[in-house]
Amino acid sequence: MTDSMTSAEDTGARRGRGERGGAAARRAARAGGGPGGQLTYIKRQVPYYEVLGEEGLALIEANADTVLEEIGIEFRDDPEALALWKEAGADVRGQRVHFPKGLPRALLKTAPSVFTQHARNPERSVQIGGGATVFAPVYGPPFVRDLQANRRYATLEDFHNFVKLAYLAPSIHHSGGTVCEPVDVPVNKRHLDMLLAHMTLSDKPFMGSVTAPERAEDTVAMAKLLFGEEFVDRNTVTISLINANSPMVFDDTMLGAAKVYARANQACIVTPFILAGAMSPVTVAGTLTQVLAEVLAGAAFTQLVRPGAPVLFGTFASSISMQSGAPTFGTPEPSLVSYGAAQLARRLGLPLRTGGSLCAAKTPDAQAAYESANTLNSTILCGANFVLHSAGWLEGGLSACYEKFIMDVDQLGVAQKLAAGVDLSENGQAMDAIREVGPGSHYLGCAHTQANFQSAFYRSIVADNNSFEQWQAEGEKTAAQRANELARRWLDSYEPPALDPGIAESLNDFVARKKASMPDAFT
Amino acid sequence: MTDSMTSAEDTGARRGRGERGGAAARRAARAGGGPGGQLTYIKRQVPYYEVLGEEGLALIEANADTVLEEIGIEFRDDPEALALWKEAGADVRGQRVHFPKGLPRALLKTAPSVFTQHARNPERSVQIGGGATVFAPVYGPPFVRDLQANRRYATLEDFHNFVKLAYLAPSIHHSGGTVCEPVDVPVNKRHLDMLLAHMTLSDKPFMGSVTAPERAEDTVAMAKLLFGEEFVDRNTVTISLINANSPMVFDDTMLGAAKVYARANQACIVTPFILAGAMSPVTVAGTLTQVLAEVLAGAAFTQLVRPGAPVLFGTFASSISMQSGAPTFGTPEPSLVSYGAAQLARRLGLPLRTGGSLCAAKTPDAQAAYESANTLNSTILCGANFVLHSAGWLEGGLSACYEKFIMDVDQLGVAQKLAAGVDLSENGQAMDAIREVGPGSHYLGCAHTQANFQSAFYRSIVADNNSFEQWQAEGEKTAAQRANELARRWLDSYEPPALDPGIAESLNDFVARKKASMPDAFT
Repeated sequence: MTDSMTSAEDTGARRGRGERGGAAARRAARAGGGPGGQLTYIKRQVPYYEVLGEEGLALIEANADTVLEEIGIEFRDDPEALALWKEAGADVRGQRVHFPKGLPRALLKTAPSVFTQHARNPERSVQIGGGATVFAPVYGPPFVRDLQANRRYATLEDFHNFVKLAYLAPSIHHSGGTVCEPVDVPVNKRHLDMLLAHMTLSDKPFMGSVTAPERAEDTVAMAKLLFGEEFVDRNTVTISLINANSPMVFDDTMLGAAKVYARANQACIVTPFILAGAMSPVTVAGTLTQVLAEVLAGAAFTQLVRPGAPVLFGTFASSISMQSGAPTFGTPEPSLVSYGAAQLARRLGLPLRTGGSLCAAKTPDAQAAYESANTLNSTILCGANFVLHSAGWLEGGLSACYEKFIMDVDQLGVAQKLAAGVDLSENGQAMDAIREVGPGSHYLGCAHTQANFQSAFYRSIVADNNSFEQWQAEGEKTAAQRANELARRWLDSYEPPALDPGIAESLNDFVARKKASMPDAFT
Repeated sequence: MTDSMTSAEDTGARRGRGERGGAAARRAARAGGGPGGQLTYIKRQVPYYEVLGEEGLALIEANADTVLEEIGIEFRDDPEALALWKEAGADVRGQRVHFPKGLPRALLKTAPSVFTQHARNPERSVQIGGGATVFAPVYGPPFVRDLQANRRYATLEDFHNFVKLAYLAPSIHHSGGTVCEPVDVPVNKRHLDMLLAHMTLSDKPFMGSVTAPERAEDTVAMAKLLFGEEFVDRNTVTISLINANSPMVFDDTMLGAAKVYARANQACIVTPFILAGAMSPVTVAGTLTQVLAEVLAGAAFTQLVRPGAPVLFGTFASSISMQSGAPTFGTPEPSLVSYGAAQLARRLGLPLRTGGSLCAAKTPDAQAAYESANTLNSTILCGANFVLHSAGWLEGGLSACYEKFIMDVDQLGVAQKLAAGVDLSENGQAMDAIREVGPGSHYLGCAHTQANFQSAFYRSIVADNNSFEQWQAEGEKTAAQRANELARRWLDSYEPPALDPGIAESLNDFVARKKASMPDAFT
């Protein structure tokens, strides 16, 4: 019997079964999402995939040390940062810091390898580091692809919608940060509305503002209103994205925000944002060397500011098309960078941020899916601890896409089930089932199947597994069309999590006062 | 600087570069395919990903031994097979064979762990086993989704087209077998036209017919005409798919074909074709146990027929939807089965067939791509040696799809580049580039980039990485639409590889004589 013969023969039987009892089950399976089904962050049960041996790792580490010592890293327009480095024993020439061999690593000994980011709902608090993986939505798109398939500037309403979807999505563990840029809000006031949304529309952990040091201060102030001043002093309640300006530069905006967060014991993700070929060498080993050097410098800086402040080894590594200069995603080179970076981060004892569901596609089509799946597969297997851009990313990050968000959420569920590994319990071994069924029969009705069928297999909320004829009868919908329907249904079903009215009022007051205190700025 | 700000800022610059010099380069990059760019089979430079530890592997092996001994495997309607097992020391009761512990493993000591399948063009010969991975196209679909997006029964013309596309595709190493069912040819004569197409329209290695023992004989006879009688006696020139009728049954058709091939020293892929939940337990460990037991029995059988005959450990493991009974693909459970099966195969010393680019989608949309990418990622990381269904599979294998074929071929290129691993040479380390560029500059024009840009990054033939505006101006095409154009262009450009006219004539004579010797049969 050939594969296809079996498939063809099975079609009739499948359809028959589907007609008898499948409709209600399908409806249930398709309902998807909702806080009831919330998954906790991933507690990994599978090994890491590693592409570098000891020799390769040692080589890259030695090369990164050479970069730090010989070439150095610039800390621009921040005299305080330069003074801190000088005091720590670095060789500061102008804005360029040269690091004696071993200094950044020595400083990083105080950084925790595992910490908790608290959510206002303690059940949604997440572990960052170790065997944990936390999925957060897309970050930063100025555009959205809306539910009418229009590409337009994002608004605060879109921002609210993505916060709601992330709150409802069982496989999203984190509310994220700039899920899209609310372009209809003045630039200098956006962070207030964004923080307010994360704090009131969701009870998952969230990210802080990094676009100016005073906005980071506002983040900490609002977090204190939400969690209480004492709690924030003693615990990490925000995580923020501190990008290097690669190659080998940190600018004053990022350094300013990093200082605010580190001083407040809040987490920073130090991330070289790299399109290889433009911001790093065209090779994987060269890119890893530069990434490691930049992270060592930036992460060690947080420990100068406050020893023990939580900090992540971040990478965002894509490549550019050497033909057009455009960024590309889902290609093999960034996957290799993620695998290698994860190994380097573990050796350094820092939690890792990398990966996501990245793509260059302009529409939620097959390109979007191939590229995103390639990125997500390497993300989960490399052992990333914090995954930004895990849902909704389209068009190289320029657009947040509703349909893509839902499709990605589905794939995050696949990744989470994969990370649970193989159940080797007696029930997992299923010897009773094999004995009961025997040669030439089937397992559909056996006791073991009956006992396990609800949780045995991952149930996709987006995939259509029905017969061709049934799919045709239901309107020949693409995955994107089904995801569109789900996004609408989820948003319709949204209800905000309960929040102490006094806290809500104090947050709203803070935002209103802050907004009233400054003129609108749109640049 | 946030990720999105960089992306947004880069858009203008990218577009500028694209307009200046990118058009010709893009055309070249998009031309794709063609025998000139043919890649040899994958010679893996990256580690295997493994999900089971020693304890889990030993447990599954012990359970499989128990299945073989206590429950047994049925060899149906083939008295010769039963006699061979009896002679070898098995306990044969009716058609059920019970295996003394260790017997199948002992028999398999004669099976090669690595062998060569020869192609008529020696440059296209492939290694099966060890660190090699060979990609072959989809196998068995009775339908096609044609270039006008019609779903209809496949014809011999479609068959020829897919053989041509596989011949042209740089990342396909093997011509495959039943790339689709040529439904317009009588069932009893199809294998002749299919073999003739593989032998004359391509110079890549191919698969044999398994739908009846006499068709397997025809395969060997035609191979002797193509390669010479002596060469075929001494070498493996065909590989054929011998599916178990899971659970725990081999039928006479498959056993008959297996005997023909093993006797002729031709390769068999012994594959439990499993939709978990129907043909095996709903758990990964239970499925692996049954797969191992079935492979041990079937593969050992080939060694009874002819010790030393090449044989593969095959798995085709999907799950069924427990709601509708339909097969599902790209879900986490089959990936875990592939990872585990690969470990079991390596311990057994047999080459492994698993995976592909599998999906349940009815159209080449995001579902097709997510599911296929998930399958392909586990396929390449688990270390599959022979990958059937690596391109063109749609709709659970019921349809061969032209667009999907092209999109998958592109992704096979991604997988092949990934498997090449990290270059740690001096050029790979790129320290000269990092020194030359320094902080705050860019790598676009540096000497190292100039020297490496042609081969640095994988170049997709399908992905659109241009700006949104350019994509819009070019008609807002989806990946499937771009793949459709490529498929047409490839087919237009096809020219057959040279073949000795005497050999071609003898093959055509053989087919004509055979066809004339029997009436048409359509069932």
